Amino acid sequence: MSGFSCPIPFSLSDYPHVLMAHGSGGAIMQRLIEELFLKTFNDGQDVNEAHDSAVLDVPKERIAMSSDSFVIQPLIFPGGDIGSLSVHGTVNDLAMSGARPCYLSSSFILEEGLPMEVLVQIVHSMKKAADAAGVKIVTGDTKVVERGHGDGIYINTTGIGLVKEGVNISPKYVREGDLVLINGDLGRHGMAIMSVRESLSFESPIKSDSTSLVSPVMEMIEENLDISCMRDATRGGLAAVLNEIAVGSGLEIHIDEAKIPINEAVSGACEILGFDPLHVANEGRFAIFIAEKDAGRALEILSSYKEDGAMPSQIGKVVNGKSGMVVLNTAIGTKRILDMPGGELLPRIC
Amino acid sequence: MSGFSCPIPFSLSDYPHVLMAHGSGGAIMQRLIEELFLKTFNDGQDVNEAHDSAVLDVPKERIAMSSDSFVIQPLIFPGGDIGSLSVHGTVNDLAMSGARPCYLSSSFILEEGLPMEVLVQIVHSMKKAADAAGVKIVTGDTKVVERGHGDGIYINTTGIGLVKEGVNISPKYVREGDLVLINGDLGRHGMAIMSVRESLSFESPIKSDSTSLVSPVMEMIEENLDISCMRDATRGGLAAVLNEIAVGSGLEIHIDEAKIPINEAVSGACEILGFDPLHVANEGRFAIFIAEKDAGRALEILSSYKEDGAMPSQIGKVVNGKSGMVVLNTAIGTKRILDMPGGELLPRIC
Repeated sequence: MSGFSCPIPFSLSDYPHVLMAHGSGGAIMQRLIEELFLKTFNDGQDVNEAHDSAVLDVPKERIAMSSDSFVIQPLIFPGGDIGSLSVHGTVNDLAMSGARPCYLSSSFILEEGLPMEVLVQIVHSMKKAADAAGVKIVTGDTKVVERGHGDGIYINTTGIGLVKEGVNISPKYVREGDLVLINGDLGRHGMAIMSVRESLSFESPIKSDSTSLVSPVMEMIEENLDISCMRDATRGGLAAVLNEIAVGSGLEIHIDEAKIPINEAVSGACEILGFDPLHVANEGRFAIFIAEKDAGRALEILSSYKEDGAMPSQIGKVVNGKSGMVVLNTAIGTKRILDMPGGELLPRIC
Repeated sequence: MSGFSCPIPFSLSDYPHVLMAHGSGGAIMQRLIEELFLKTFNDGQDVNEAHDSAVLDVPKERIAMSSDSFVIQPLIFPGGDIGSLSVHGTVNDLAMSGARPCYLSSSFILEEGLPMEVLVQIVHSMKKAADAAGVKIVTGDTKVVERGHGDGIYINTTGIGLVKEGVNISPKYVREGDLVLINGDLGRHGMAIMSVRESLSFESPIKSDSTSLVSPVMEMIEENLDISCMRDATRGGLAAVLNEIAVGSGLEIHIDEAKIPINEAVSGACEILGFDPLHVANEGRFAIFIAEKDAGRALEILSSYKEDGAMPSQIGKVVNGKSGMVVLNTAIGTKRILDMPGGELLPRIC
């Protein structure tokens, strides 16, 4: 629980730990909602009015809706925490549909005894991530479970976003000849978490790639780049994403292993722990399926958002082969089928 | 765990219990999503496409958004289960804003080892409740936590609904002279849960009032009844709701205790366990603040939806008194302030 520095608002300081009463609908719960959640999330806009629903104006457009629960352990990790992750996860899922994320709900399942300062820190981290992604947190819910029945904090965020006329992004729109791009190196989130859990240390510690993808995606969409599909490579890693899209499109995807950037510490950790980096979860990496003519511009846009020296890369191509298959041209010149990962991979990674 | 009768789909029968792998992003998780969630929730409409967001057409209107997590114990109770409750809770919150609920997300936090038949039963119960309330479950998420870190199943539902032009429902619209109605007897949900937990038995067992309020609310709204505010009396009971509205409106609310229907078994259980029925959670009861001229018609509509002989009733009136105060005219002819309930009431009631 180290690394927390947000002061507990004075009005909450009577209760340095979460009590069952913080979830029971009475005055103590109301004070938590008003003094922490509303004060942090609600910049004075009139959407909550202490009501159970937020009422929101939206223009006539299509709406995208996405929901994610977060159960990650540990709650804080190199490069992020459950709060920022819970915002990034949902805004990224919306962005992957071509939607501009607008509104989020945030619902908490708190474990009795959670230090209040941890909750305060996580809530502030959510607010910072929401601001950076351009979304407002407009409604939510708080439940408290007895000590030993939760894991400190579980968060659900559900988001709605607006999809511009003419934007149609889905595996079924993927075409023969589309190029496959990724926006940076793979495997960082999963290996950052596992390194903490397994107490591995590296010369340069592995930092999660958890980030909002809203800005680069919206820039590509506003320039009308001819994108057929996008998908963030979270649980199951790039291998899961490519397999889902190969099945959804009925086409075959060829990937050049040598073009997939993976940093040295991540390769090392994967080797030690026995993971395939293509199966490892990311929280700020996505695959883009795009017409060849627009791939160069897309790579320019992605490069302008790269951090930590992680280069975007064209990693493969869609061909009219065997439906649903992903073929990996390996670094040593052989070919292998890249399968959907099986069951148990990295539990509690998000 | 008794009372479950849904057969496990054949394709899931290899795994009679939830495994960590059911949450890990691989093939086993995908099979759970396809064979249980999509097959149950998705009646062939093209909203999911196995994508992380659902893209939805909405007309130009205001949207209401509401989110709730459900951690109730026990998972099944007289009159419902966590599945139906998780739908009723969110559609009712939307209806209380005057919104017609349209779409729900459903996100699950499952505990490793949960019997698959329990999950199947709960998912089917959600679908039945969603159909009855006229909402579609369009997106969701599944996480699995290790044995001992959850409580079988936690569910988050987040809903969006459409608010008709001209419908403005909020404590701030409450006016002097508004009458206060409720749609039936109070305290059933909380006392049904407590009776199970405390192994109390009564001549007639107490059944939760958990139900969708969408139909009666929409009927009142379509008839343009002059409603200023509605609020469902969930955690904290009627006392919490009235206090919130008294504060939000800046007016005083007078309630006649004798007019509040409470059934005999509920009164008995409250007496034994030391609860004030006005503080006890309901899941199918709401307070309506309405212009006097339309109160009669509202009571007629509410009566047409009553079940179990629970009569709707006019229980009080808004007066221009001391801001934020709720005054109870007791059955024995005295007056008392009805306070906001304090902290610990009934944990894990929803």
